[in-house]
Amino acid sequence: MAFLRNTWYVGAWACEITRELTPRTLLGEPVLFYRKENGEATAIGNRCPHRFAPLHLGKLVGDVVECGYHGLKFDCTGSCVENPHGDHKIPSAARVKAYPLVEQHGLVWIWMGKPELANPADIPDYSHLVDPRLKTIGDLMLQQAHYELVVDNLMDLTHVNYLHAPYQKNDDFLAAKHEVVQQGRMLDSLRSIPSTTAPPSFVPFLDDPAAPVDYWLNIRWHAPGACQLEVGVVPVGRPRAEGIRRQGTHIVTPETDTTTHYFYASSRNYLLDDPKADLETRNWQQVGFHEQDKPMLEAVQKMMGTTDLDSLKPVLLASDVAAVRVRRMMKELIKAETEPQAQPIFVLNK
Amino acid sequence: MAFLRNTWYVGAWACEITRELTPRTLLGEPVLFYRKENGEATAIGNRCPHRFAPLHLGKLVGDVVECGYHGLKFDCTGSCVENPHGDHKIPSAARVKAYPLVEQHGLVWIWMGKPELANPADIPDYSHLVDPRLKTIGDLMLQQAHYELVVDNLMDLTHVNYLHAPYQKNDDFLAAKHEVVQQGRMLDSLRSIPSTTAPPSFVPFLDDPAAPVDYWLNIRWHAPGACQLEVGVVPVGRPRAEGIRRQGTHIVTPETDTTTHYFYASSRNYLLDDPKADLETRNWQQVGFHEQDKPMLEAVQKMMGTTDLDSLKPVLLASDVAAVRVRRMMKELIKAETEPQAQPIFVLNK
Amino acid sequence: MAFLRNTWYVGAWACEITRELTPRTLLGEPVLFYRKENGEATAIGNRCPHRFAPLHLGKLVGDVVECGYHGLKFDCTGSCVENPHGDHKIPSAARVKAYPLVEQHGLVWIWMGKPELANPADIPDYSHLVDPRLKTIGDLMLQQAHYELVVDNLMDLTHVNYLHAPYQKNDDFLAAKHEVVQQGRMLDSLRSIPSTTAPPSFVPFLDDPAAPVDYWLNIRWHAPGACQLEVGVVPVGRPRAEGIRRQGTHIVTPETDTTTHYFYASSRNYLLDDPKADLETRNWQQVGFHEQDKPMLEAVQKMMGTTDLDSLKPVLLASDVAAVRVRRMMKELIKAETEPQAQPIFVLNK
Repeated sequence: MAFLRNTWYVGAWACEITRELTPRTLLGEPVLFYRKENGEATAIGNRCPHRFAPLHLGKLVGDVVECGYHGLKFDCTGSCVENPHGDHKIPSAARVKAYPLVEQHGLVWIWMGKPELANPADIPDYSHLVDPRLKTIGDLMLQQAHYELVVDNLMDLTHVNYLHAPYQKNDDFLAAKHEVVQQGRMLDSLRSIPSTTAPPSFVPFLDDPAAPVDYWLNIRWHAPGACQLEVGVVPVGRPRAEGIRRQGTHIVTPETDTTTHYFYASSRNYLLDDPKADLETRNWQQVGFHEQDKPMLEAVQKMMGTTDLDSLKPVLLASDVAAVRVRRMMKELIKAETEPQAQPIFVLNK
Repeated sequence: MAFLRNTWYVGAWACEITRELTPRTLLGEPVLFYRKENGEATAIGNRCPHRFAPLHLGKLVGDVVECGYHGLKFDCTGSCVENPHGDHKIPSAARVKAYPLVEQHGLVWIWMGKPELANPADIPDYSHLVDPRLKTIGDLMLQQAHYELVVDNLMDLTHVNYLHAPYQKNDDFLAAKHEVVQQGRMLDSLRSIPSTTAPPSFVPFLDDPAAPVDYWLNIRWHAPGACQLEVGVVPVGRPRAEGIRRQGTHIVTPETDTTTHYFYASSRNYLLDDPKADLETRNWQQVGFHEQDKPMLEAVQKMMGTTDLDSLKPVLLASDVAAVRVRRMMKELIKAETEPQAQPIFVLNK
Repeated sequence: MAFLRNTWYVGAWACEITRELTPRTLLGEPVLFYRKENGEATAIGNRCPHRFAPLHLGKLVGDVVECGYHGLKFDCTGSCVENPHGDHKIPSAARVKAYPLVEQHGLVWIWMGKPELANPADIPDYSHLVDPRLKTIGDLMLQQAHYELVVDNLMDLTHVNYLHAPYQKNDDFLAAKHEVVQQGRMLDSLRSIPSTTAPPSFVPFLDDPAAPVDYWLNIRWHAPGACQLEVGVVPVGRPRAEGIRRQGTHIVTPETDTTTHYFYASSRNYLLDDPKADLETRNWQQVGFHEQDKPMLEAVQKMMGTTDLDSLKPVLLASDVAAVRVRRMMKELIKAETEPQAQPIFVLNK
């Protein structure tokens, strides 16, 4: 499992982390999340170094986790703080990993690499998730597919015209102007479709559904798996600020080599207090992500029979440009991490 | 998976192939079946060469299959005929396999090897399936066992006296005269039991169930997995043409190295329009094939823990003669295909 | 799978072996148990050497097993005694293994190694199981964990204070005097806790539950997987013979490298005819073994991702002393068996 390690991943939605011991596998590692008495979220290794019991089968006593098998206690730094056996000395190897953690904008970001390299300033901005001018609906799911397949799916949005046709088809979409812009570990994929028919998912929210609109889709990827998707329509020629708009959150974190946590949300700037609009969002997430994307990605993973896409020599199309760029950037970042001599050199908008 | 490739396999019953996109794995390969607008059955590879989506998740437009993920279109020659992206140029690698296909006597035969070697004249004759003087009842099933185990089961019919005793036991069966005759890629296993008790499955259809009969079982195997079984009884001394007779169709096609498609049918020359006789046939197929053969073969496969029978050094009995000959012939045929220098030399009736 | 072979394992409870053909995998080998017409339990290999059918799918005729596939017959020495095919000669390789078997004290002990080394005198004494002064309640289960993890669980009883706290917690337990005594292939782990509170599971059976008791737990392991646990309480200062006591039977036999048969029973010396005390025992076995031990051990096995504990460098605690000694003894015994030059030298109580 060659994952990028010195980077921030989303480990959980903030609301998932409570006083319950919550296990989650990330990048193949067993992680234990919980919230301290002062409300702070924390994450340590979930495997007791004594007899390898999962610590989430134990109990939380104050801020300390007691192993449910033989009673070793660990604090949130991963140190063993109590050995109830024999002379009570604590063996120096009795410790679990502690993960740098930042709770921000409703997300819990976790650093899976060298703790000393963790810089919270590198966490991408997802403040739209808590913007009071937007209404956000989200959830998470597990996909039986390598995380890069889920990222590919997001970075080639032409799939909406086929896989999500009933909700999203737009006849001018494939011919739209498409710009791909790289900035450091970030990639923007920008599409504008002036004077077109509104895609079906916007129709219920337009005064005149038949009137042509300017339509845009911008997706911004931050390595390794955080995507923000802005989709909007506005009456032809009007500024985008006047349009109705959805800010999509699509963040993927590898669980294992063949499974992926997918955190998703949609933040809209219209009908903030309308339960029908909430329901519309939930329906779309259910159909689009659970009933269309998930079966397709899992079928692709099975058809591939490997997690190494290149080994299968995929035929590349114009629509693959952003997805291919992302894969290349990831390859360079992982190479730079494992072979520190070989620093990647990113050139803007190359 | 060392399968014979330059040969005809049954891919489906003809009635299974419709305007629905129908996926089936054959010899480990994902195949997509459908019927063209002119009614012709066709089969192409089921894995899109772009992002490896299974094409059966797409849709059939005229005679063309549109991938459900990003919209590439393939015709029944396997060629990509439309790329909706970018400049619409079709990359030369954008193609899937097309399989020679022959629909004949209710079966769809598919050629898994080099297309230029496919000769429909080599397809074995299964015209009894559509003979109006016979009534045919059939179906298909999947067995969790290597296809050679299913062929072994057919080529050593002594198992009917044990596994299928309630339906088929005959006290003179094991001592019956048994001839094994090879002709090219074909093997006949012939048994005659003069003046014996009718086996239970014939009893309901005899005027005098207690009267002795001449009983015969002939099974003809065509490489790699097509078997025809003729079973009949006739009053002692009368010509076989006067007997009541069942023409069995037992065709196996590897799905994967450990799973097998099993196409079966029974064509009888008596009570053609009798629903009770139909029901009797279905009952026998349900009990004999699904409840007796299938659990036994799957248990054998598990017990073996390998698909290489020889590596387990089986004890061979007189009753194995036809099954062993078939395995040897298959080994030679596969060797001849993979090492073209080493052509098998078949001598008639050797 | 490096299992000790020249040793007695429990293959079944005696009451499990009847005139039904009963298959069970032991040390990865398919074994067939049945009872002869004279009542004697017997065990032979469960895989027919002809076509590898599981013999338990056949039938028992007298003391002979007839294969359900092609009718070879085997007696309880593993010899083929009938070949119904061809000239009826019996190939010399047509035989299955026969296992030395001893039915004793309600258990069926089986020898998985060289038959000539099997000595019934080496079977550990489990006569308490049939002692009329005790009432015994038991059963068996399958654990998805390597058998050594189940033995570890038994040999480090400090886990009862955590995993089984509601039934077994005792505040003086961890500080109790603990002696570990080795005798040959046997290890005793002895704990005495004078003048303490009775553990919850004894409380319902005490005249004065609040009165302090002398409490003891002794577990005796016989290689490779037979443990006897004596647990008792007695009014402070009184001889143990006056106490109430439970003789626990905890015997593990590997099924495969990652699964384990676990035979358990509890024999109490009080309320012999009291159905409520029976129910109490069953409840404890259900909760303690099925709902607490089993999920924990299976989770540990998953967390380990290997059956080689040492490779994970476990942190060892004082409480591990007996479990570690057992693992070391097993390693030496297996080494002595596979490298006969290297005899283990056991020193008493070292």
